[in-house]
Amino acid sequence: MAHALEHLAIIGVGLIGGSVARSLRATGYVGRITGIGRDAGHLERGRALGVVDDWTNDIGAGVAGADAVLVSVPMGAYDTVFPALAGALPAHAVLTDAGSTKQHAVDAARRHLDAAELARFVPAHPIAGTEHSGVEASLAGLFQGRLCVLTPTPDNTPEAVSAVQAMWRATGADVLTMTAAEHDDFLAAVSHLPHLLAFALVDAVRKMGDETHDPFRFAAGGFRDFTRIASSSPVMWRDIALANRRALLAKLDALEAELGELRAAIEAGDGQALLDVFEAAKSARDRWLAGHGGTL
Amino acid sequence: MAHALEHLAIIGVGLIGGSVARSLRATGYVGRITGIGRDAGHLERGRALGVVDDWTNDIGAGVAGADAVLVSVPMGAYDTVFPALAGALPAHAVLTDAGSTKQHAVDAARRHLDAAELARFVPAHPIAGTEHSGVEASLAGLFQGRLCVLTPTPDNTPEAVSAVQAMWRATGADVLTMTAAEHDDFLAAVSHLPHLLAFALVDAVRKMGDETHDPFRFAAGGFRDFTRIASSSPVMWRDIALANRRALLAKLDALEAELGELRAAIEAGDGQALLDVFEAAKSARDRWLAGHGGTL
Repeated sequence: MAHALEHLAIIGVGLIGGSVARSLRATGYVGRITGIGRDAGHLERGRALGVVDDWTNDIGAGVAGADAVLVSVPMGAYDTVFPALAGALPAHAVLTDAGSTKQHAVDAARRHLDAAELARFVPAHPIAGTEHSGVEASLAGLFQGRLCVLTPTPDNTPEAVSAVQAMWRATGADVLTMTAAEHDDFLAAVSHLPHLLAFALVDAVRKMGDETHDPFRFAAGGFRDFTRIASSSPVMWRDIALANRRALLAKLDALEAELGELRAAIEAGDGQALLDVFEAAKSARDRWLAGHGGTL
Repeated sequence: MAHALEHLAIIGVGLIGGSVARSLRATGYVGRITGIGRDAGHLERGRALGVVDDWTNDIGAGVAGADAVLVSVPMGAYDTVFPALAGALPAHAVLTDAGSTKQHAVDAARRHLDAAELARFVPAHPIAGTEHSGVEASLAGLFQGRLCVLTPTPDNTPEAVSAVQAMWRATGADVLTMTAAEHDDFLAAVSHLPHLLAFALVDAVRKMGDETHDPFRFAAGGFRDFTRIASSSPVMWRDIALANRRALLAKLDALEAELGELRAAIEAGDGQALLDVFEAAKSARDRWLAGHGGTL
């Protein structure tokens, strides 16, 4: 049977890479899937689970003969992966990634790939995940109904964009196209800044305590939910904070201005000003939840 | 059959007041329960649900003959409720409340009650709740295994403290005693500040959007959990922010200092500094979750 994609190579077979593999295999979109990574035990588990057909530690060997290559590694590893792809990407293959910040991905690609390779690198960010990680947590339905943002560059050929778009659509995702800057700005607001805040709050509370006074003891369900993202991978979020620093700092400015207004209202005992902000926030969140958020 | 408490009057029969009623009735701790409030339809629903035996809109009439009185109204209503209790609280009755900030409760009581009444007012804060509100959401198990903080005052008699402590213990709560200032400090850190932050973030994101650019569209599960408390009651949280302003502003100072450190690390590209904070936060949260937090 012919497949839309005969051979897919996935560099980084974790939650996201593994879920792309499972999703594309479930619909028969792809024939053979090669997993590429550093940890043999991890890759062998992926093979045993049927996520990949074969695997290798060698990027050059792994992508040979592939029709499409997916880079699904932490942002901090891009400057290790792209040099290995340079000169190794087959002439007909398209290249995409799944990183959380897009300008950083484009910058890394431009540092290492040549013009012909850059023409076929179409950056992507599937906005999906679970609190778990690793190939064991990967699942075929992870992207179903979720957004996947494509940020094509001026370097891209229309054919490469179409091929990458078709592949992400085949995972079940709703594919959307915008510039890398727009993507990074949106994600800084609704993902990167909340993570920074959650880490900051938990660390601040930690510093408030001592051996006889433990504020965490008085934390309840609201605190648990508010801080859930502070249990995310510190390494991954360090990488994202640095990779998207410009947009993140701009959003932090906006948040600090908002906190400054709330502080002034509290100091002045201005209940109406507080109520206005709290009600605007609650309405905005409830409206979001009734729409997109309700399907999360 | 004799009850530990023959007659309990509850001013404000919502989620908390209703759950105290259900909890104390379930164990046979209390005989008769009178509900007191402003909304006849609401109180009648409470009676139909078996939460209260009878109800009245009149605080003076409702507390007549009661052995214990529970004030379970928003902090903003304390200056309406306490004047009505002055001179009406039966000479043998103890008085407690369930407000989220304790110094404010003591201050309100001192403005309106006489010395003999203040001797029997033992402030309390059961740290429990759900995202729902109203008597319909009340349940007998709400306080089971949860903390209830008592903040007795120098005015209190030991007998009043014992009686109020026994009543809260009978709801299933773990009762803990500290000063109002300690309580307000702890809760500012793990409850009031997170609520302020959640409202601030959602309002800041709202302002970032316009008709063609809606950042909420890119929000996912992490954002949903982080901002869940921004769907809380704006009126209740306005009251709490103002009632506990001193402690809340101190915690906001600490959080802003933490954000300042993170900002400096991002600007300097100091990945190690970011990693140190993120790892300390993740460890603290995971440790908390493995202990107290895991039972939430």
